[in-house]
Amino acid sequence: MCSDSSRSSLASEAPIGIFDSGIGGLTVAHAVSRALPNERIHYFGDTAHMPYGDRSPELVRAWSLRIAEHLVNAGCKAIVIACNSASTTAAAEVAASLGAHIPVVDVVSPVVQAVAKGPWSRIGVIGTRATIGSGVYGTSLRLAMELNGKPGLVEEWPTPLLAPLIEEGWHDHELMVPVIQSYIDAAGWRLEGPQSIDALIPGCTHYPLALDALRRVVGENIALINGPEIVAKEVCDRLEQTGLTAPAQSKVRHRFAVSDLTLSFTQSAERFFGSGIDLQHDPIWG
Amino acid sequence: MCSDSSRSSLASEAPIGIFDSGIGGLTVAHAVSRALPNERIHYFGDTAHMPYGDRSPELVRAWSLRIAEHLVNAGCKAIVIACNSASTTAAAEVAASLGAHIPVVDVVSPVVQAVAKGPWSRIGVIGTRATIGSGVYGTSLRLAMELNGKPGLVEEWPTPLLAPLIEEGWHDHELMVPVIQSYIDAAGWRLEGPQSIDALIPGCTHYPLALDALRRVVGENIALINGPEIVAKEVCDRLEQTGLTAPAQSKVRHRFAVSDLTLSFTQSAERFFGSGIDLQHDPIWG
Repeated sequence: MCSDSSRSSLASEAPIGIFDSGIGGLTVAHAVSRALPNERIHYFGDTAHMPYGDRSPELVRAWSLRIAEHLVNAGCKAIVIACNSASTTAAAEVAASLGAHIPVVDVVSPVVQAVAKGPWSRIGVIGTRATIGSGVYGTSLRLAMELNGKPGLVEEWPTPLLAPLIEEGWHDHELMVPVIQSYIDAAGWRLEGPQSIDALIPGCTHYPLALDALRRVVGENIALINGPEIVAKEVCDRLEQTGLTAPAQSKVRHRFAVSDLTLSFTQSAERFFGSGIDLQHDPIWG
Repeated sequence: MCSDSSRSSLASEAPIGIFDSGIGGLTVAHAVSRALPNERIHYFGDTAHMPYGDRSPELVRAWSLRIAEHLVNAGCKAIVIACNSASTTAAAEVAASLGAHIPVVDVVSPVVQAVAKGPWSRIGVIGTRATIGSGVYGTSLRLAMELNGKPGLVEEWPTPLLAPLIEEGWHDHELMVPVIQSYIDAAGWRLEGPQSIDALIPGCTHYPLALDALRRVVGENIALINGPEIVAKEVCDRLEQTGLTAPAQSKVRHRFAVSDLTLSFTQSAERFFGSGIDLQHDPIWG
C-alpha cells in the first residue's frame, strides 16, 4: 500500500478513472488497486476501437478526449491514461481539457522519469507502432537523462505483434520467445557485452503479461522496467499532493466497462486484471 | 477475364463498391480487377474500426450498413462485402437495406456453394473469432452438401492471430508455419490418412497472402480453396444476370479509400492488392 493518509471529502471518495483502448490497461488498474486498496476504480476500455496502436494520432486524440470527458462526467476525481498510444499522442490535450483540478497521469512520463533516475545508460524501448513512431520515449528519456547529468543511449523498436499475441493468451506460448527474439534481432540490439542494452522498457500495457517470455529472451542481466508499478506510485503521489486520497474503507467496489462487449473480452479481462471481474457494456459511441 | 459481354448504360459504367474492415479485402478487389478488367472498383476499408474479427455482431452490422449506404450514395452499382466477419453477420441486412436492384455479393455464400459442388467430404474452415463463432460456414456448408446429395463433415477453428501476422508482412516469415501448425494441432485435424480433411477453406480475406505457409503445413494432398477467385466469378455472374457488366474500355481508374489513413496502411495496401495503389482518406465517421 502506498499511504494511509487521507482527507475525507466528497471528492476524495470519488473513483479514479482509468482508460485504455481495450483490456491491456487492466494491468495498470491492477497495480493501482494493489498500491491503493482504498481507491475505487472506474475502468473504461474502448474495445469498439481497439487497438489504438495502428491508428492515426488524430483519431486517438479525439477518442481519448471523449473518454476522459465521459469518466469525469461519471464522477471520477482523477484520470489515468493506461494506454501508451493514447499517452504519447493525447496526454497533454486530455490534461488541458480537464483543467488543473483533475490530476491526469499517463503511462509514459512516470516511467521516463523513473528510468532516467536509474543506473542504466543504454535503454531499449518496445511498443506498438503508434507509440514507437511518436518517438516520445526516446526524446523525453534522452532529455531526462541529460538533465540528470548522465546522458544515455535510447533505442526504440516497434513490436506490433506482441499485443495481439498476448490478447490471445499466447503470453506463455512456446512461440512467444522466438517472436520476441525475432524483433530483438531486427532491432539489432546486443544483449551481452559492452554494447548491450542494460534496461528494456516494455512500452505497452499488455507486455507485463509477457515478462517471463521477455526475461527468457533478454537474460538475467538486463533490467525489465515494470511500468504499471511505477504508474501506480505516481497516481499515489498525485492524489496525496492534491488531497484526493480516499479515506480508509473496508470494501471497495470497482467498475469495469467496455464500449463493445464480447465473450472474448470477458475471458481476457480476468487474465489482465489477475482475478475475475464483472465487465459492463457502456456503448458511449452510440 | 470473365466475359466481354456488356450493355452500355449509365448504370453499367458505375463502379463496383467493395468494402472490408481494413485492407485484407484488397485480395478480393485484386481478384475482381483481374477477372473483370473493364470494371471500375471503389474500395472502402474501415481502418478506423479494424479488425472486425473480434467485435460484437451488433457493431459489425451497424458499420456494414453505413458503409454500404455510403458506397451506393457514391454511385456504386453493386456491393461486394469483402470481409468474412461482415459477410457472416451483415450480408442479409445489407442486401435488404439496398433493395433488389443493387447486387450484393458476400465472400461466404459463393465459397460455400463452390465447395459443396466439389469432390471433398471432410472440410476444415479457419477464420477470425467472429467468423468461426458465427458457425455460418459449418451450417451452410453442411446444408449445401446435403442438398447436393453428398453429406460431409465440416469442422471450424478460429485462428485469430493469422490476420495480424499477415498485416505485419509476416506471411512469409519463418514463424508463420509453426503458428499455423499450432492452430491445426489445437483443432485436432488430421492431415494424412483416412481421417484427414481433404479441403481447407481459408475463411478470411487476409489468408490468400499466406497460401504458401498454409500449403507447407497441410501438404500437397489437401485442397486450399481460393476464396477471392470464387467471389470474383460470382461478381461476374451477378453483373451479367442484371445487365450491369461494364462496357469495354481502355483505361480503368479504381478508387481506394480508408476511414483512417496511416503510413502502415499505405505500405500494407500494396502487398494486399499486388501493386501500388493510391490510398485516399475518407473519414466517413466524422
